[in-house]
Amino acid sequence: MDELPTAGSGEDQLIARYFRPLARHPGAFGLEDDAAVLVPPPGFDLVLKTDAIIAGVHFFADDPPDSVGCKALRVNLSDLAAKGAKPSGFLLSLALPAEAGTSWLASFADGLGMDADRYDCPLLGGDTDRTPGPLVVSIAAVGVVPSGAMVRRSGAKPGDAVFVSGTIGDAALGLKLRRDPMLARQLRRQARDHLAARYLRPEPRVELAPALLLHASAAMDVSDGLAGDLAKLCRASRASAEVDIERVPFSDATREVMAIDTRASDVALTGGDDYEVLCTVSPERIDAFKTAAADAGVPLTQIGCIVAGERSPAFRDGAGRARVFATASFSHF
Amino acid sequence: MDELPTAGSGEDQLIARYFRPLARHPGAFGLEDDAAVLVPPPGFDLVLKTDAIIAGVHFFADDPPDSVGCKALRVNLSDLAAKGAKPSGFLLSLALPAEAGTSWLASFADGLGMDADRYDCPLLGGDTDRTPGPLVVSIAAVGVVPSGAMVRRSGAKPGDAVFVSGTIGDAALGLKLRRDPMLARQLRRQARDHLAARYLRPEPRVELAPALLLHASAAMDVSDGLAGDLAKLCRASRASAEVDIERVPFSDATREVMAIDTRASDVALTGGDDYEVLCTVSPERIDAFKTAAADAGVPLTQIGCIVAGERSPAFRDGAGRARVFATASFSHF
Repeated sequence: MDELPTAGSGEDQLIARYFRPLARHPGAFGLEDDAAVLVPPPGFDLVLKTDAIIAGVHFFADDPPDSVGCKALRVNLSDLAAKGAKPSGFLLSLALPAEAGTSWLASFADGLGMDADRYDCPLLGGDTDRTPGPLVVSIAAVGVVPSGAMVRRSGAKPGDAVFVSGTIGDAALGLKLRRDPMLARQLRRQARDHLAARYLRPEPRVELAPALLLHASAAMDVSDGLAGDLAKLCRASRASAEVDIERVPFSDATREVMAIDTRASDVALTGGDDYEVLCTVSPERIDAFKTAAADAGVPLTQIGCIVAGERSPAFRDGAGRARVFATASFSHF
Repeated sequence: MDELPTAGSGEDQLIARYFRPLARHPGAFGLEDDAAVLVPPPGFDLVLKTDAIIAGVHFFADDPPDSVGCKALRVNLSDLAAKGAKPSGFLLSLALPAEAGTSWLASFADGLGMDADRYDCPLLGGDTDRTPGPLVVSIAAVGVVPSGAMVRRSGAKPGDAVFVSGTIGDAALGLKLRRDPMLARQLRRQARDHLAARYLRPEPRVELAPALLLHASAAMDVSDGLAGDLAKLCRASRASAEVDIERVPFSDATREVMAIDTRASDVALTGGDDYEVLCTVSPERIDAFKTAAADAGVPLTQIGCIVAGERSPAFRDGAGRARVFATASFSHF
């Protein structure tokens, strides 16, 4: 941690103390300039993404501040990963309420800095304001892909296999448990902790990016619920999909909730915050993709396939009946 | 304006209706993907900047929404211009309270889109959330400069001339008048309107960027007050400055306020939101810089010069006395 500068406004001192240590990219100029410089390597495109998280909307105001720092960056890294991009750095725009004092900031910057190191994604620049409202962390993340290689939402073709990474629904159930302590008390502690952690700290599938670049025909991250996000991918690809619900990967903890609450399955399939990768792969590339994902240590499950037609994807149960969801995905509007 | 899509969530429809028309950059993929692609031309660096504006902090919640859209982009374009960068595009992160309905959004998008066209700075991507708090518009703007040519804060040398563009203090006095109707009523209508407009819609000095690239030794935009921002430039350059207050360019409207309120001069010199350019130029380049600025149609005034030493810049009155400001610049902290 740098020393406090001997001059400058409170804002300058705050930036120097908490954020300069995260700004290791040479183009960040130690946050001492008004803007950052970034030069993509020859033959690479930049991939840009912005996503904000708001207290009381995307996280709880009393969540550990280091987790808030992690989540703010990771929701963006998840998008970059799904596009096949390697992180380059990020811009941070922070609206802080009065109650977020120095200990909050120190912990927030710790979490953010840990992830900036872990994912090799340094802070490039930022903006810090006071707000009379809830805390807002808005991050714009930048990554690189080989020229023209960004994995689009729109490339899925009939016959392609539909894959998801990891497990689906944990975070949405983690959120449900925080709002429903009665339900939470019926679970084993291990299951509760697992689901809570998945909501609090998503794990972006950064390691899967190279395999997606090589093999995926389309990809996106699952942030607003599997059913709705697959519908978005299908719309962008002018196609539809058939999904076998029995093949959707659920964690043991999620299955434990499902055994108690019959509505949990719908929450898992349509709830947000998974930050897993949803992708499609043409049949001749499936084996190579599976091998590349296994080498990267990312669990993958084929849950269905792309079919022709512009209707909504069908999620079928064991008897072949299509499940109808009340709301296919999370929307703020 | 596009038609409403026939499918998709409320959020998708909102994005399609109000923001897709602004996303003319091919790398924005019509906002139908999760991320944007940007490729700087060979021999150019990208310059990145983020700045947010918050209702009740940087603008009034009842300001015309198109002005809010303009201001959100312009405060970022002002930074790019001061760095010598040409705008490439921007990411938009929007936290909307419930009371910002479709008519608010339509007007906001109008203002933003008008400026995206005017400054050739298309929307690349974005994120839209509901917030229980005040409206927050966070923009990350991207521009380009020839490799290694970004104009830094840190290049000022003793003997360099200190210039500012336009006039100083108008926006800070415009804000003061909105908070002090008694004072406002003492002014002619023309002066009131001028100062109000300068607060509501800053004019980024985009046309000055090429002249800065060629001739400035250091530059930044004046967003937190001339006195404080010059102190920042001097700190970054490990130098100091002497400013002649009588040479600081004030508008007729600002002089009208000064004639009524003796504290107005301090407000003008230390208040925020000017969005003019502050820069330094070595003596042998002064003539060429003035010519280039005149060709670009940007008024410029030499207000002082850089001197050796690491003390705060001195702002001297007609008698040579250094003015002591209570607060040299705006700080949120």
